[in-house]
Amino acid sequence: MLFRRFASTSCLPPTIHQLLRSETTSPSSIQVNGWVRSVRRQKKVAFAAVTDGSSSHDLQAVFLNTDLAKRLTNGCSVRLTGKLCTSPGAGQAKELQVEEAEVVGECDPELYPIQKQTLSVEYLRDNCHLRARTSPVAAMLRLRDTFKTAIHEFFKREGFHSVHTPILTSNDCEGAGEAFRVAPLTSVHPASSGLPPKTEEFFSNPSYLTVSSQLHLEALAAAMSRVYTLSPCFRAEPSQTARHLAEFWMLEAEWAFTQSVDDVCRVVEAATKEVLQAALASQDMEVFAKDFDPSRLEALKSAADASRAWPRMSYTMAVEKLTKSGVAFQFAPEWGKPLQSEHERWLAEILIGGPVFVTDYPASLKPFYMRANPDGETAACFDLLVPHAGELVGGSLREERLDLLEKAMERHGLDADTYRWYLDLRKWGGAPHGGFGMGFERLVSWISGIENVRECIPMPRWAGRMLL
Amino acid sequence: MLFRRFASTSCLPPTIHQLLRSETTSPSSIQVNGWVRSVRRQKKVAFAAVTDGSSSHDLQAVFLNTDLAKRLTNGCSVRLTGKLCTSPGAGQAKELQVEEAEVVGECDPELYPIQKQTLSVEYLRDNCHLRARTSPVAAMLRLRDTFKTAIHEFFKREGFHSVHTPILTSNDCEGAGEAFRVAPLTSVHPASSGLPPKTEEFFSNPSYLTVSSQLHLEALAAAMSRVYTLSPCFRAEPSQTARHLAEFWMLEAEWAFTQSVDDVCRVVEAATKEVLQAALASQDMEVFAKDFDPSRLEALKSAADASRAWPRMSYTMAVEKLTKSGVAFQFAPEWGKPLQSEHERWLAEILIGGPVFVTDYPASLKPFYMRANPDGETAACFDLLVPHAGELVGGSLREERLDLLEKAMERHGLDADTYRWYLDLRKWGGAPHGGFGMGFERLVSWISGIENVRECIPMPRWAGRMLL
Repeated sequence: MLFRRFASTSCLPPTIHQLLRSETTSPSSIQVNGWVRSVRRQKKVAFAAVTDGSSSHDLQAVFLNTDLAKRLTNGCSVRLTGKLCTSPGAGQAKELQVEEAEVVGECDPELYPIQKQTLSVEYLRDNCHLRARTSPVAAMLRLRDTFKTAIHEFFKREGFHSVHTPILTSNDCEGAGEAFRVAPLTSVHPASSGLPPKTEEFFSNPSYLTVSSQLHLEALAAAMSRVYTLSPCFRAEPSQTARHLAEFWMLEAEWAFTQSVDDVCRVVEAATKEVLQAALASQDMEVFAKDFDPSRLEALKSAADASRAWPRMSYTMAVEKLTKSGVAFQFAPEWGKPLQSEHERWLAEILIGGPVFVTDYPASLKPFYMRANPDGETAACFDLLVPHAGELVGGSLREERLDLLEKAMERHGLDADTYRWYLDLRKWGGAPHGGFGMGFERLVSWISGIENVRECIPMPRWAGRMLL
Repeated sequence: MLFRRFASTSCLPPTIHQLLRSETTSPSSIQVNGWVRSVRRQKKVAFAAVTDGSSSHDLQAVFLNTDLAKRLTNGCSVRLTGKLCTSPGAGQAKELQVEEAEVVGECDPELYPIQKQTLSVEYLRDNCHLRARTSPVAAMLRLRDTFKTAIHEFFKREGFHSVHTPILTSNDCEGAGEAFRVAPLTSVHPASSGLPPKTEEFFSNPSYLTVSSQLHLEALAAAMSRVYTLSPCFRAEPSQTARHLAEFWMLEAEWAFTQSVDDVCRVVEAATKEVLQAALASQDMEVFAKDFDPSRLEALKSAADASRAWPRMSYTMAVEKLTKSGVAFQFAPEWGKPLQSEHERWLAEILIGGPVFVTDYPASLKPFYMRANPDGETAACFDLLVPHAGELVGGSLREERLDLLEKAMERHGLDADTYRWYLDLRKWGGAPHGGFGMGFERLVSWISGIENVRECIPMPRWAGRMLL
């Protein structure tokens, strides 16, 4: 009777997560697969903590016949048969009383690279292919999945469609010149052939890895109204900070018929709160929250509160607040200059103590596509700043007025021919529209408290480093 | 009272899809945004079909005051205010009785590239940025979204986690030499500097665009047990067929503790049937099914039937059937040679009349990582062949036995050092495991009946061609 739900609709046996959360215990024997995280041997009984990566809670396996536990070592993979029972011990509701144990894949406990003591992040980066076997990295990976589910559910409910925008593109959306180039097909090395270099392009025109899906999303929003994507993006920037990766994931959404920055911020806020709520409800957050300063968890709960709107202030107001703060910043805040990380952190961490939208930056600091405000100086845009992680989201209304867009492109020295299609979107039934981009690893970093984004993605890439 | 669900939990007004599927009509006025697909003017009344891309059904807007419809043209964007009423006319359950109409973005009906008559696929490829405004392309995009949702729900229920595997990689999984290379950072063109070319790599080692996430998924499955990804993949293959793209999306899943090809096929079959059922239940399929040969829809329904298992046959049996078929194939079927497209289609379309798993191909035809069968000749693998689209899925058990894997790599001339991490997965608590890859655009093509995969993705890229 038990696990009928699994048996009737599933192709695979239940995971440890599914077993632990199921209401009942098992009258008959079941099979559990996983890896041994630790073994504790006593005279008449042995215990093993077993994980299959599905849960932040290990399954406690109890061996009343200690012989069965003899060959078990940390890291080995096992197939256990036994009964799932209510656990008399503290620390877990259920345990597996083992009747049969088979070591499926051995693991030399002396040489195993993933030892039980705390391993440095640098060491784990070097052992990137094994680091998901540690509890925090596995929890981070499951948390990413939880975030994705929350994001999909939010956008589905709001009438958005998820779309796949291209990774290879002929344009450089941000115009920052940090796009990776896909190599042309040169069969003979130009330097060794003695001939002029042949740069035969695979696609006939030069291709780059996308730095943002926004322009493509705009084309789709001009037909589907509401679209979003969680897509890989690439920046060939050499900076080695805790907030930058050469390959990262970005949530980008774009929708038509939105008319104010306020509208766009409202969607960002609702989406982010939904992710926060999903995170706070998940077991995996316990893995991180146990090391938090208690105020940090409170701050996250407060940010997740749907009844309290996140503050918004203009860039002009932010610069004023920074100037009057009396803080000795490394870079003096000044209207017309970008906000530095230290400024962003002060605004979110000290002034507000939570997420804050900063709006209407000087147009000169922003890309060509942002909608000009009536003041002629600022753009209808915003950044969302959060404690610790800094800039989490950037967004704006997009310039839908053809003449103003053409002038902005001229000012930015962009070739009108390359962007003909983008101008076309304004020419044929254009509509006011806006959108945003959110760094997915920064979101993970902010909520989990993991300091470096290199630990917020399964297999990080940055300047000088790409394993696997 | 009406739209309370929207008003209380949503940031945005309802889409046309949400309006049309809601149970009730509107006692008070509402606002609808969208694009005019066509206008029909009579003496005392005018009608406009309005779409916002959210539904395959247009909203019928009724203008009792025909002046309001005066400025409306095909393709223009509009904001309409009115009451949602039960429609007396045939063809729709509801209609909007328009009280106010505003043209938000004009569209010259003479010059608009998306005219009402049927446009050729080639013309629409050239106008890739506008083609989502046509009904079939929009339906295809929504269908992709429906597929993705079905996939995520299936894998979630089966205890899988969705993971983001890297796009930039140092290995070429399939070993077919068709990986795109990311260009090194050479500031001076080697041919013009007179110096030996400097190939300074951004990541210190050469990097490629992934051709498959499988090896990375294997690393994660060795920690999380069950993982999957829907990820972009890239092949620099020059072939110009209806089934190949240079950039495409692949659903790949990998799980530990699976022990037979049969197990892997069962998961593939269940996942695919769930997508089929979601497709058949969606309004968007109507857009395609209305042009189907009736037998095609029946075949899809039959394939979706959970109570009927898809047939499985060995490669050896398939070759025998082909040989005895009496069909004059261009390539004679022969044991030890790959199945050609014509063979695959005959098996799925003629012999079986539906999806069929072909298993246990000669190991010499398959990549190094597939598990060797006891017969010493074949691999524990399969292809799923479907009518029209041919090979939809490929999968296998992976070789988990370290010594056999090392020998296979040697046979394939692979460098053990590059794959040290991959061997490591077998060394430390390895487990039998398997998985598969499914071409997402081929799935769309098979189910929708769209012939060419270039029309199954928003913005296609193939050899010689990359717009936007």
